[in-house]
Amino acid sequence: MLRINSLEKLVHQLSRLPGIGPKTAQRLAYQILRQPELSQSLQEALVSVREQVHLCERCFSYTDEAEICRYCADASRRDDVLCVVEEPSDIVRVDGSGVFRGRFHVLHGAISPLDSVGPDDLKIAELWQRIDRAQAAGKPIEEVILALDPDLEGDTTVLYLAKVLHERGIKATRIASGVPLGSDIDFVDDRTLGRALENRVEL
Amino acid sequence: MLRINSLEKLVHQLSRLPGIGPKTAQRLAYQILRQPELSQSLQEALVSVREQVHLCERCFSYTDEAEICRYCADASRRDDVLCVVEEPSDIVRVDGSGVFRGRFHVLHGAISPLDSVGPDDLKIAELWQRIDRAQAAGKPIEEVILALDPDLEGDTTVLYLAKVLHERGIKATRIASGVPLGSDIDFVDDRTLGRALENRVEL
Repeated sequence: MLRINSLEKLVHQLSRLPGIGPKTAQRLAYQILRQPELSQSLQEALVSVREQVHLCERCFSYTDEAEICRYCADASRRDDVLCVVEEPSDIVRVDGSGVFRGRFHVLHGAISPLDSVGPDDLKIAELWQRIDRAQAAGKPIEEVILALDPDLEGDTTVLYLAKVLHERGIKATRIASGVPLGSDIDFVDDRTLGRALENRVEL
Repeated sequence: MLRINSLEKLVHQLSRLPGIGPKTAQRLAYQILRQPELSQSLQEALVSVREQVHLCERCFSYTDEAEICRYCADASRRDDVLCVVEEPSDIVRVDGSGVFRGRFHVLHGAISPLDSVGPDDLKIAELWQRIDRAQAAGKPIEEVILALDPDLEGDTTVLYLAKVLHERGIKATRIASGVPLGSDIDFVDDRTLGRALENRVEL
């Protein structure tokens, strides 16, 4: 690397991004040096994201609307079903399936004792408050669909949330794990196939 | 992608970087959203690179020094040998070999008729001016080492530069192509091995 202080700082900042190693960061930095216009646009984009995007007060997804995001503001969605996801980006995936027309709630992560992420580090208290508010307003939430990742952290979070939801008498469901559509059973790993067998659907 | 204008703009700018596809750009943008501090540091790094880094007046590498870069300012380097490279980053590679202790000259690319890059789009006129100035100052350049990539564009540029250098009576050399050290002849492609045979060195 050319020993230029500001260039090295840029490489360092770029290499903090996920999946960007020191070598890639160098290549990006040189490209940015070659294109001042790109550098300028990138900088402006960073500023306007920081200035305009914030968390939705209701579902904790990202939004640039005044208070609530367009999913929360959409009058055509059902209020009595809530889909809980780990990240704001998961909302787009669940919505894209076209099957779910209720509301969302973003946890911003999953319980992970190994990374010292407990329930208090997530938007879980906000989930209970939201359920209480709906109850108090006479429009109780009937079902909470847990659309969390089928990994250790997701499983832990599902167990935790389901226990509290059951105590509150609210139906808790989890999206199914199994063989992806269009794939070949031959190529599916043992644990996924095991889960698919356990979760088999009566015809 | 969440339909947020400023977020989409950030993704667009990130995906203009080399090797960053739309999917990676989305992942980076979400990470930047999660870490306002990273966004701020990245922005400041972009600004300071734009403000501080410019081309060296002599060799056309990047520098943050007032006029000439540290390679041009280094009094311990020889003035009579010039190493011509395509990109500023190549200087670090050539210098890192520890074998070359002369000066550098950056072309900022190579001749590529397919991409409509001709000699006028590169720092080639500046190379001739530099050679003329050295001549006029009574410290003529004795040898120009062409350390260009061994690909179609590099080969074309080498042929072009060598022709003019010969006309001017200056020794022109090119770094050798051949089998990389530590590699296995079994795994080297035919063209490289052919070049290694053509360029064989008498013992």
